[in-house]
Amino acid sequence: MLIKPRTLSGFKDRLPQDALRKEDIITTLMQTFRSFGYAPIETPHLEYAEILLNQGGEEIKKELYRFQDHGERDVALRFDLTVPLARFASQYKQELGLPFKRYAIGNVFRGERAQAGRYREFTQCDFDFIGSTSINSDAEIIQVIHDSLKALGIERFTISINNRKIMNGLCAHLGLESQTESLLRIIDKKDKIGDEKLKEELEKLEVGSEAVDSVLQFVAQNGTDRAFLEQVKSSAYNDLMREGIDELIHAFAILESCIDSDCLHFDFSIARGLGYYTGMVYETRLTDCPGIGSVSSGGRYDNLTQTFDKEPLPGVGASIGLDRLLAALDQLGDTPTTSTPATALLTLMDAAHAPEIYRIASQIRQAGIALETYPAPDKMKKQLSYANKKGFAYAIFAGESELESRTLTLKNLITGEQKEQVSLEVAITTLAEERS
Amino acid sequence: MLIKPRTLSGFKDRLPQDALRKEDIITTLMQTFRSFGYAPIETPHLEYAEILLNQGGEEIKKELYRFQDHGERDVALRFDLTVPLARFASQYKQELGLPFKRYAIGNVFRGERAQAGRYREFTQCDFDFIGSTSINSDAEIIQVIHDSLKALGIERFTISINNRKIMNGLCAHLGLESQTESLLRIIDKKDKIGDEKLKEELEKLEVGSEAVDSVLQFVAQNGTDRAFLEQVKSSAYNDLMREGIDELIHAFAILESCIDSDCLHFDFSIARGLGYYTGMVYETRLTDCPGIGSVSSGGRYDNLTQTFDKEPLPGVGASIGLDRLLAALDQLGDTPTTSTPATALLTLMDAAHAPEIYRIASQIRQAGIALETYPAPDKMKKQLSYANKKGFAYAIFAGESELESRTLTLKNLITGEQKEQVSLEVAITTLAEERS
Repeated sequence: MLIKPRTLSGFKDRLPQDALRKEDIITTLMQTFRSFGYAPIETPHLEYAEILLNQGGEEIKKELYRFQDHGERDVALRFDLTVPLARFASQYKQELGLPFKRYAIGNVFRGERAQAGRYREFTQCDFDFIGSTSINSDAEIIQVIHDSLKALGIERFTISINNRKIMNGLCAHLGLESQTESLLRIIDKKDKIGDEKLKEELEKLEVGSEAVDSVLQFVAQNGTDRAFLEQVKSSAYNDLMREGIDELIHAFAILESCIDSDCLHFDFSIARGLGYYTGMVYETRLTDCPGIGSVSSGGRYDNLTQTFDKEPLPGVGASIGLDRLLAALDQLGDTPTTSTPATALLTLMDAAHAPEIYRIASQIRQAGIALETYPAPDKMKKQLSYANKKGFAYAIFAGESELESRTLTLKNLITGEQKEQVSLEVAITTLAEERS
Repeated sequence: MLIKPRTLSGFKDRLPQDALRKEDIITTLMQTFRSFGYAPIETPHLEYAEILLNQGGEEIKKELYRFQDHGERDVALRFDLTVPLARFASQYKQELGLPFKRYAIGNVFRGERAQAGRYREFTQCDFDFIGSTSINSDAEIIQVIHDSLKALGIERFTISINNRKIMNGLCAHLGLESQTESLLRIIDKKDKIGDEKLKEELEKLEVGSEAVDSVLQFVAQNGTDRAFLEQVKSSAYNDLMREGIDELIHAFAILESCIDSDCLHFDFSIARGLGYYTGMVYETRLTDCPGIGSVSSGGRYDNLTQTFDKEPLPGVGASIGLDRLLAALDQLGDTPTTSTPATALLTLMDAAHAPEIYRIASQIRQAGIALETYPAPDKMKKQLSYANKKGFAYAIFAGESELESRTLTLKNLITGEQKEQVSLEVAITTLAEERS
C-alpha cells in the first residue's frame, strides 16, 4: 500500500528557489557576523528537558517537543538558541575565555497552535557578545543588525531602542517596582493595541490614574538624536533613569561614527516581553513592510547562565528572524525567479559527444562559473524547455560543427539573442558578466 | 538549585575552532554542488513516523527517535536525508520537473549504542541526480565527489567503483538469484574481515564450494583502466554482466575527460550494503587515512519513491560523510589553530576613543577584512593575551598619537614584528595579504 507523501501540520519544505534564496541570505549573514569576529558554535537539536525547561516560561513548557529517548532519558527539542548558549557558555567557560562572541544559525521547535505564517520548526540567527559589560558591545550588536540588513540589500528600516533601566527607574519613581514586569508586558503591546486600549489595560493594574497618566506620557516620547536624549535626561526622575539614558547617549555616539544613524530611533514604548533583559533593548522594523513586525530584536542581559552557574555572566545579543525576513522580501517584490544555482545549461546533442561536452563543462567550471550539463541527447526543444523552466540565463550548444571548430554557440535565454562561433575564453567572459 | 550543564550521551557541541572549520567545509561543498547545478532543498527534521519507517530497515526502526506530538501524531526525527528526499520528490514532482538535481546538508538522528567516534546526531551532505537513467549522470556524481575532495584540498584518494548489474549477473550465472542480497552483504565486509573469513562466511550460505570459489575469484579482480574492463567483459558469463561492465566503460570515458582519472579504481568487492542500489555503486577512501573508511559513497537506484508512488523514479546520488572527513583532516594534521574568523583585533586604549576606533574598524571591514574591536580599555597585556588566545593574526593599536597622526600601529602576532605609523590604506593591504 502506498503512503501519502506529506509533511506534519506546521512544518514546511523548501523547494529549490526558496531554499537557494534562504541559503544565500544565511551566507551573507554569516559573512557579516564573521566580519565582526563572531564565531559559529554548534549545539545539538536535542537536549535534556531539564536543561531547556528551567529557562523557558510557562508558554514554552506547553510548546516543548518532549519525550523519552531509548535510554528513558527525559529529552526535548530546543525551542530557541539562547538556552543552549547559556548551557554551552557555562560548560566551556574555561576553554572559551571572555569576551566570547558567537553566532548560531539553526532550527528550533515549538508546538504552537497552527496559524498562517507561523511554523512549528523555524530558523533562528542569533549573535551574542558575552562577558562584556561595556556599552560598546551593546552598540556593536546594533551595528551588526544594521550592517546585516544593508548587506542583504535592505536600505529602509528603523532600529527602535530603549533601555530597561529607564523603565525600571520610572517604575521605581511611581512606586510600581513589584509590577514592573506586568507593566512592561502591557507597554510592549502598545503598537498592536493602540493608545486607548493601552490605557485601559494599564488601568486594570489598579495603580492609580496619576501613575497611568505618567506612564502613558512617558512611553509616548520618542526621538532620533542626542538632543532628544539630553532633554529626556534633564527631566529624569532618578539616577537609574539617568544611567539608562546615559547608556543610550554613549551608544549613539559610537553608532553615529560607524553606521547610517538615520535609522536609529529612541522609543520608550519598546519593552521586549522577555524577562531576562536588564539594559538596552531594541527592535527593527522595515519601512516598506510595517505589517511584518520586528525582523531583528535583542538586548542586554545581566545573567545568561543563572540556572547553571553561581557566577553571573553578562552579555548582549540579538536575533534575526529569517522567516520574517523572507516574508518581507516576498512583500517587497524580491521573488526569486530561478530554481538553479547555475548560470548556464550546456546541452547534449549527440550521445557520442559526452566526453567532449563534459570536458568543456569542466573547463568552464574551473573558471568559477556554475554550469550544468544536460545528461542525455534529448530533443533540443525538450532541453531548452528544461533550461527555461529552471531559469538558466544561458543555454550553450556544442554540436558537431562547434566541436570541430572548437567554438560554442551561446543563447541568452532572457533576450533570446544567440551568438555563434564563440571561443571558450569569450564564452567564459560572457557568462562571468551575467553572473555578476 | 543549579542544573549541571551537559549534553546527552552520544551528542556533541562544537566549539568555535571546530565549528569554523566545519562551516568552511560546508561552504566549499555547497559551492561545488552548486557549480554543477545542484540546488538546495529543505525538509523538516521531524516527519510522520510512517513516512520514515517504510523505507528504513529493521536496524533503523530500533534506532528511530519516535514519539507522540502535541496532537498525538506518531512522529520521528529523520534518520537520513534520502527518505525525506523520496517523500519530497513524490510530493512535488509536478513543480520540480525532471531531471531534478538537489543537495541537502543537514543533521540526522540515530539512537545507536554509544561508541567512540559515533554520534546519535550527525551531519549528512547528500547530492542526487533524479529522473535521468543516463550513465552520464552516474559519471557526474563521481565527478562531484572528485571535485569536492579536491576543493577541500585533499589530493590523495581512491574512488572504488562496481556495478550491481555485474554482481546480479554473476549470481544469476551461479543460480544464486535468491541469495544475492545475503551474498552482497558478505562481500561488502571483505575489506574488514579479510579473504579467509570471507570464504568461511560464504560457505555458510551452503551454495556449494564451486560457487564459493567462483565468487571469491571474481571479487578479487580489480583494475584501473579500460583495458581491465574490456578483459573482464570478454570473460563475462551473461548479458547482464556485460551490460554492467559497459556502463563502467562508458562512465570511465566521461571521467577520463574531466577528472584526474588516476583516482578511479574498479573493484568487484564493492557491494554497498543498502538494498536500494541497482546499478553503479562506489566508495571513496583517503590514501593517507585508510582506517577512516569511506568518506563518500553512493550509487544508482531504480526507484527512489516506491513507497509513495506507483510511477518509478530512477536516480543516482552520493553522500559525503562530514564527520569522517573532519576526523580525517585531524589525522592528516590539519588541525585548526584559531577560534576567531577575524584577521585582526583592534585594541581600545582609552574609553573616550571608542567612537574613533569604531569608525576605523568599520572602514577596515568595508574593505572586506574581518576585524574585531576589543570592547573595553582594559590593560594592554590583557587585550593582547585575548588576541593570542583567540588566534588573531594581527593586533592593531590606535592610541592618542596614532589618532592624531591618522595612522595605526600593526603587530603581527605570529612573527612579533611591529610596524608603526601605518596609513589606513597600507594597513588594509597588509591585512588583506594575511587573509589570502
